[in-house]
Amino acid sequence: MENVVSMNDLSVEDINALIERAEIFKKYGIRELPGEFMISNLFFEPSTRTKTSFEVAERKLGLEVIPFEAGFSSTLKGETLYDTVRTLEQLGIDAVVIRHQDDKYYKELIGKTGVSIINGGDGSGQHPTQSLLDLFTIKEEFGHFENLNILIAGDISHSRVAKSNADALSRLGANVTFLCPVEWAGSFESTDNWDGLLEQSDVVMLLRVQHERHGDDTGFTKEEYHRRFGLTVERERKMKPGAIIMHPAPVNRDVEIADRLIECSRSRIFKQVENGVYIRAAVLETVLKGRN
Amino acid sequence: MENVVSMNDLSVEDINALIERAEIFKKYGIRELPGEFMISNLFFEPSTRTKTSFEVAERKLGLEVIPFEAGFSSTLKGETLYDTVRTLEQLGIDAVVIRHQDDKYYKELIGKTGVSIINGGDGSGQHPTQSLLDLFTIKEEFGHFENLNILIAGDISHSRVAKSNADALSRLGANVTFLCPVEWAGSFESTDNWDGLLEQSDVVMLLRVQHERHGDDTGFTKEEYHRRFGLTVERERKMKPGAIIMHPAPVNRDVEIADRLIECSRSRIFKQVENGVYIRAAVLETVLKGRN
Amino acid sequence: MENVVSMNDLSVEDINALIERAEIFKKYGIRELPGEFMISNLFFEPSTRTKTSFEVAERKLGLEVIPFEAGFSSTLKGETLYDTVRTLEQLGIDAVVIRHQDDKYYKELIGKTGVSIINGGDGSGQHPTQSLLDLFTIKEEFGHFENLNILIAGDISHSRVAKSNADALSRLGANVTFLCPVEWAGSFESTDNWDGLLEQSDVVMLLRVQHERHGDDTGFTKEEYHRRFGLTVERERKMKPGAIIMHPAPVNRDVEIADRLIECSRSRIFKQVENGVYIRAAVLETVLKGRN
Repeated sequence: MENVVSMNDLSVEDINALIERAEIFKKYGIRELPGEFMISNLFFEPSTRTKTSFEVAERKLGLEVIPFEAGFSSTLKGETLYDTVRTLEQLGIDAVVIRHQDDKYYKELIGKTGVSIINGGDGSGQHPTQSLLDLFTIKEEFGHFENLNILIAGDISHSRVAKSNADALSRLGANVTFLCPVEWAGSFESTDNWDGLLEQSDVVMLLRVQHERHGDDTGFTKEEYHRRFGLTVERERKMKPGAIIMHPAPVNRDVEIADRLIECSRSRIFKQVENGVYIRAAVLETVLKGRN
Repeated sequence: MENVVSMNDLSVEDINALIERAEIFKKYGIRELPGEFMISNLFFEPSTRTKTSFEVAERKLGLEVIPFEAGFSSTLKGETLYDTVRTLEQLGIDAVVIRHQDDKYYKELIGKTGVSIINGGDGSGQHPTQSLLDLFTIKEEFGHFENLNILIAGDISHSRVAKSNADALSRLGANVTFLCPVEWAGSFESTDNWDGLLEQSDVVMLLRVQHERHGDDTGFTKEEYHRRFGLTVERERKMKPGAIIMHPAPVNRDVEIADRLIECSRSRIFKQVENGVYIRAAVLETVLKGRN
Repeated sequence: MENVVSMNDLSVEDINALIERAEIFKKYGIRELPGEFMISNLFFEPSTRTKTSFEVAERKLGLEVIPFEAGFSSTLKGETLYDTVRTLEQLGIDAVVIRHQDDKYYKELIGKTGVSIINGGDGSGQHPTQSLLDLFTIKEEFGHFENLNILIAGDISHSRVAKSNADALSRLGANVTFLCPVEWAGSFESTDNWDGLLEQSDVVMLLRVQHERHGDDTGFTKEEYHRRFGLTVERERKMKPGAIIMHPAPVNRDVEIADRLIECSRSRIFKQVENGVYIRAAVLETVLKGRN
């Protein structure tokens, strides 16, 4: 694996191998990689957990992390992303993690420089390490994916996570249902009616309402959204025994999910954060080992 | 000591123990802590000396410092401080140093996550490591606190330092007097008249005029402020032999203090900066050792 | 060498020694310096390659790099550059790399603190490590400087590189010619006519059109500039065998140089980036060794 930019490029075998590696890291700790590698995290959009999660994984792997302030770089002088990455290659950087506002920004990079690209989220496109950590968390819970019923609820059309997860879960044998306001469905088949869904779902995966992408034109107040599409305390009561709640975070409290459910016994929200470190370490290790 | 957020939580014994540890660090160097610790510095307000001072102390203690750009994090997407710190906990972070514009931001954190909180300054509230380094500097100079006369002059009501220092110095046996414009006294008893104060003070501690908090409504030009409340060259001449000048910096030259006094023989301003590294190392060591 | 702020301070012997050290680093790798050094990179203007290049060199030399966010420091509270550097000295920092918008910002620093200053670019003034890496790249190509014809084309008056390079190249025995719009020549003797220049030049060194300094008052559209002063595909064909193309980057594609020439066989643009790491390591090593 030279690059990891989209779940679509990963076979079921690739996915399982990465999850197994993350399980081993979680059980025995993350070991330093032999060899010297330099990496840089190019985050052109704000992020706490993805960026920090990569940073922690990189330090534990013993990588030399070269800081890059996207908001204070030569991209401000109009430098292209290709020129930036090509420059980092010349400086000796082995791999970059990139989050960028443009869909498929990586198309202009893959195969064109010697730097490995790990996608930390592109526009409304893919976010493969988030998908992988979601899958890892589901596998840890249920031991398998076959015939699990996964309900993904929320801002489907703008969500990197929905896109990344949907196809992978289907390929792994799970049944995915989308629930969202009809205006937000994009090209996905979806429902806006909770009837019967909660009772049969093994996983209720909530997505963030991305106020920063919608502006004020969502057509919903926060209260309305919560009442119609959020996981309220009442809805949680209808979930079946053993079913879990997931959310990629950051959470809009009392919008996608009731404040007091965030750390309830069904919630795996903060466990997802923890699992992210192991998955990212697995992805980084796999990509960097492939370079030797 | 699990957290260090306010001088009010530190007993006289705690304060003396931290100062003694800093003295040892200054004499013999800062040693790497056994064990592996990850720390992150969350500065939501600009800072050079406090942030860099912590960074240096952390490196010397051998901690893994995970970068956090407050101005480019998920707090921009509305994430609460609790969720940010809870996320860092899940990523494996042991302790965070936080500077935040809100008074007592730490109330929503202490005891609610497993991350140790070190307060790097809250709103107009506390700034305990600045207080401790001030105390360390005074102790280093005079060998004791009892019956020392400390004059604190300047922007008392907005000053974290005044609040943090006043109570601690009193408990340690020193006599504290405040001098400031009446409008800036807040709830402190103060005078706006220098008569006799300089002649009897062992320490003249100047505070920064916080233009960024006052806006333009201070009611003083810089020249006026200097003339009435600043340490002018003339006033310095009235100070008694052996008395010292302190300032937490950054300094507004020719406002709180005459430009040419900043590095005069009485000034301990840059020594305070140096002492800050040792004090912060002592605080970090104490907090992290308490976690083992 | 205590500081490196301007090419004018470096003798021909100094320049040759630094280039020779960079050659050795390139051949055998950069080794960690004995001793413990702390360094900080103070970039008050956006930069990718200079800042990252220094970071990489510093890590390879085994220095402790203390982060400094210029856009989020006490300079925002009006702190002077002197006070910032003096503060860093007290925190134990040995050397700082500074990029700053003010010409000769270093005048208020040199000899006034114990911190070594390495100039990463001052206003429209000097950029000595860029000059040195340009010289290194030319020496690597031709083995010598004597009687080489160097054409420097572009925004001479705003260019740190033109100023830094011109004098050094002359002292080393090369012949330098400037080509630019007459309005941009500043105090340099220049031509705005390509006739005969391409056929005789060993090096065509292009400079960046600094839109961010000119605003919109350049008087040229990008297309016009390219047609009259850029290295077009047609002009490249007139270059003599063995002649090379250089550019300090970031490049405005199709302005200073045709897009498809950027990675052509004559171009050393990305090799310059690579060489920058070795030159910066040589400068850092020389300055820090001088402190022991």
